[in-house]
Amino acid sequence: MNEKPGLVDKWHKVIEINPPLQFASREGKPEDTIVRVNGIDIGGPEVVVMAGPCAVESEDQLFSTARAVKAGGAKVLRGGAYKPRTSPYSFQGLKEEGLKLLAQARAETGLLVVTEVMDARHLELVCRYADILQIGSRNMQNFTLLEEVGKCRKPLLLKRGMSATLEELLQAAEYVMKGGNREVLLCERGIRTFETSTRNTLDLNAVPMLKRHSHLPVIVDPSHGTGHAWMVPRLARAAVAVGADGLLVEVHCRPEEALSDGPQSLSPDSFGLMMNELRAVAAAVGRC
Amino acid sequence: MNEKPGLVDKWHKVIEINPPLQFASREGKPEDTIVRVNGIDIGGPEVVVMAGPCAVESEDQLFSTARAVKAGGAKVLRGGAYKPRTSPYSFQGLKEEGLKLLAQARAETGLLVVTEVMDARHLELVCRYADILQIGSRNMQNFTLLEEVGKCRKPLLLKRGMSATLEELLQAAEYVMKGGNREVLLCERGIRTFETSTRNTLDLNAVPMLKRHSHLPVIVDPSHGTGHAWMVPRLARAAVAVGADGLLVEVHCRPEEALSDGPQSLSPDSFGLMMNELRAVAAAVGRC
Amino acid sequence: MNEKPGLVDKWHKVIEINPPLQFASREGKPEDTIVRVNGIDIGGPEVVVMAGPCAVESEDQLFSTARAVKAGGAKVLRGGAYKPRTSPYSFQGLKEEGLKLLAQARAETGLLVVTEVMDARHLELVCRYADILQIGSRNMQNFTLLEEVGKCRKPLLLKRGMSATLEELLQAAEYVMKGGNREVLLCERGIRTFETSTRNTLDLNAVPMLKRHSHLPVIVDPSHGTGHAWMVPRLARAAVAVGADGLLVEVHCRPEEALSDGPQSLSPDSFGLMMNELRAVAAAVGRC
Amino acid sequence: MNEKPGLVDKWHKVIEINPPLQFASREGKPEDTIVRVNGIDIGGPEVVVMAGPCAVESEDQLFSTARAVKAGGAKVLRGGAYKPRTSPYSFQGLKEEGLKLLAQARAETGLLVVTEVMDARHLELVCRYADILQIGSRNMQNFTLLEEVGKCRKPLLLKRGMSATLEELLQAAEYVMKGGNREVLLCERGIRTFETSTRNTLDLNAVPMLKRHSHLPVIVDPSHGTGHAWMVPRLARAAVAVGADGLLVEVHCRPEEALSDGPQSLSPDSFGLMMNELRAVAAAVGRC
Repeated sequence: MNEKPGLVDKWHKVIEINPPLQFASREGKPEDTIVRVNGIDIGGPEVVVMAGPCAVESEDQLFSTARAVKAGGAKVLRGGAYKPRTSPYSFQGLKEEGLKLLAQARAETGLLVVTEVMDARHLELVCRYADILQIGSRNMQNFTLLEEVGKCRKPLLLKRGMSATLEELLQAAEYVMKGGNREVLLCERGIRTFETSTRNTLDLNAVPMLKRHSHLPVIVDPSHGTGHAWMVPRLARAAVAVGADGLLVEVHCRPEEALSDGPQSLSPDSFGLMMNELRAVAAAVGRC
Repeated sequence: MNEKPGLVDKWHKVIEINPPLQFASREGKPEDTIVRVNGIDIGGPEVVVMAGPCAVESEDQLFSTARAVKAGGAKVLRGGAYKPRTSPYSFQGLKEEGLKLLAQARAETGLLVVTEVMDARHLELVCRYADILQIGSRNMQNFTLLEEVGKCRKPLLLKRGMSATLEELLQAAEYVMKGGNREVLLCERGIRTFETSTRNTLDLNAVPMLKRHSHLPVIVDPSHGTGHAWMVPRLARAAVAVGADGLLVEVHCRPEEALSDGPQSLSPDSFGLMMNELRAVAAAVGRC
Repeated sequence: MNEKPGLVDKWHKVIEINPPLQFASREGKPEDTIVRVNGIDIGGPEVVVMAGPCAVESEDQLFSTARAVKAGGAKVLRGGAYKPRTSPYSFQGLKEEGLKLLAQARAETGLLVVTEVMDARHLELVCRYADILQIGSRNMQNFTLLEEVGKCRKPLLLKRGMSATLEELLQAAEYVMKGGNREVLLCERGIRTFETSTRNTLDLNAVPMLKRHSHLPVIVDPSHGTGHAWMVPRLARAAVAVGADGLLVEVHCRPEEALSDGPQSLSPDSFGLMMNELRAVAAAVGRC
Repeated sequence: MNEKPGLVDKWHKVIEINPPLQFASREGKPEDTIVRVNGIDIGGPEVVVMAGPCAVESEDQLFSTARAVKAGGAKVLRGGAYKPRTSPYSFQGLKEEGLKLLAQARAETGLLVVTEVMDARHLELVCRYADILQIGSRNMQNFTLLEEVGKCRKPLLLKRGMSATLEELLQAAEYVMKGGNREVLLCERGIRTFETSTRNTLDLNAVPMLKRHSHLPVIVDPSHGTGHAWMVPRLARAAVAVGADGLLVEVHCRPEEALSDGPQSLSPDSFGLMMNELRAVAAAVGRC
């Protein structure tokens, strides 16, 4: 959502950016960037919902979930084929097999596909299947990966690092944009704080702050931002109200059986109920 | 807002509370507490807005601001007479003179008055003038003060400490309730994190989490939670969307001349615009 | 330990202090402050060890522990009579009875007594028994208590708040000194961070930074700074090596039976071994 | 330093590690790992000092600095050829040219070389020149890079991420060890907290905690851990006292002209003075 003049006392710049940004800054490009992918506009009036499982686990799991999120109103299917896991003994993803399943789910549902790339050596392969690339929190400052993605002509969803300042997130976007790829979606997904009852602390302050300093769309991930499925609809509503251009939400056809992130994954039913609620909030703030 | 069954997959308790709460816990009292003060219900369907200056500075300043927030739709006037300031050389408040001005502003506008008590020795005096007592972040674990307020028959707005966990906030409320005062309003006002572009990080995760574990109303302070007036309306909308029962907002008739917290104080015009926006969001989530 | 010219490239001031300090700053008083209490110098060449139980629990517990820490080389007996506890249902201290026991232990052992004051209304009573007053982390910004202690003629051990910046700690000391009490001991006791394996993160950076900006002695509390008794001797050594003027250490005659802080309390034997190790480290850095 | 039985009340395990470690854990391998590189033992009685510039800038800069740190007693030369920089417009390192200069400095001085690898595609090249590989904080969870380094037969210095828990650091080491490379040096380099007067908060609690849970050597980097050259000698002493097996220190022949990290780089003179001090502290804790 654009800043409405009446609400803004003056043009405060509060993130110190040094050296200055050339491409990611709103000073250099005052109008909002709209990233158009296969007819879907991200950064325009519509709040675009990207939903799906944490990890692609099987054809059945992915297709059941994809159909459910499509029915609920999602426009983009999320799902990890390459999974960055804290332990080497946790499920690491189906890799290329997972990418193929994502492409099949796209073919069936018409959803776009966003999926994570963890390594520059996988980039060509991931680009073959994804509509939108994702760089995860742990790789937000993997600068050589950012540079490689900068040479691609695929939009990038760039997730804020767990303890990255907003300046660092914008500088990471600058690495990509400097290489020629100007279609970056900034993603707030919760930061690491002392509070232990939630997995992370969703920082919704980040949304207006990023939009003040940058023209890029801002997406919010309430699943990682809370870690608890029952909290996700509440924080999703807040994200829409604060001005997010999109949401990234974990949904699993059977959350209790998920190989990763089950506790924060919505069931299809909960997702559907959430989407109904979000429409009302979006309308209240002039979005759709 | 009450939890809607359809949205909640199961009753997750995620704050570890040890030893257990006897009065503040939702287990012991499943229904929401509604704090009624002079006909105003806090914790009911209406999102109650408490607004006014950081500090009472003068009759002119207080009355101008009080009239403006009344016109905008606030129900409670905030204003500090005793000010906890980091430096002993900063303005410390008008003390009893400030309390008297608050009472006069109440008489003129019909607004309720919430104001901070910093010391048990001032409690009788503050109770004489205030409708709602406030304990600030720096005193959230001033346990002897909590105990004294527990003996009062005035509602208490209890602000979360800058690095207090939600368990600690609930335990602080328990100190008050154990003494007999069951009318506590919990207030999220931003936590201290590594991010430096905002004064604090407003933790909206706290709202559903507190309401899950406690029956007490939850108020959000987006002024301290951001530190920037231009961000306040955005985060206020998010707070309403996430389920806050009320807002605590700093408004000053001339923010640029404020003796404290000017940069985060809304002008009367901005406050009025914000209130109009909030009505739409409140309606979208079934509040008024 | 004083800054040695050869080690210091230049006089960096890195804490922004605004408004400036008048009494706590090294600019106004370049020489180190030495607080002399009954013949014990704190802030001089000797690293002064203050040890004892978290809380005074009984005559037997206190006297056993006091004799042990005296034998190990402590100069000051610590022990809480008024205990700030997160929950109202936890042991709150023996209050005046605890103060009396502390005074008796002093009479028997010759140790000085440091004990916490939580409330201005207890101040006169605590002053009657204590040699050194203590203000705990939760009250570091209890400004009216700081002001009252500023009027006393007893040294104050002022503990850093869990998320207090070093500037805020110095400003809190300034509140006390402005009132006339110039004998403040600054105490680093660990800060709240995201790390969960330790109770707090002991911030030893604070020691040289505080000594650079202030002439006041700096004490380190490795018990709260780690939360684990087995870590305390290691971090105590580090504290001495980094330049601390004293240590505050929890020791209990039977840690496994302690009413509070047992897991971080040293046994008398461990305390004795630690003290032997500390002598070698102190000598290595020119202290005793 | 090994745990001395008398100091340790019992074998507390306090990091929750799930799924369990197979290679990095002390349970599986109780004795300390000593990493031997060209006759230098890391993890044995000697505290091994690794020193040099943040970035290799020129032959003159590198050789002057290398000679100085050799003269001061360092055993390993540090210096970045590939530099992970927050902004794409900052100096990014001399790359292969920098590696060649490091090899020449080794040939002249006899120092070992530790240098960072940022990308799996550079690994073969970096291995050709380095004695010890380094993975920096921003890549601590670059899991595909960890896996590739796991296939190398070069020791790895693995730096803790800015907001990584100790469990996450150990799990990252496990990725490397699972691949066959068992020579991992864990490096504490400061964590991100709310405190702003220092660049990071050096977490010396991490040293005994890591050594309790793992047999791997632990190195401390007081340069990044403080951000201020004048503080480095103090915290280096503390690191030795707490039980670190080595230090990683930034030294620049002319800090004021450094292309990166000048403010935290020691001059050759300061480095020499620090080394003299460290010898005394090491001796006091039974190290050399």
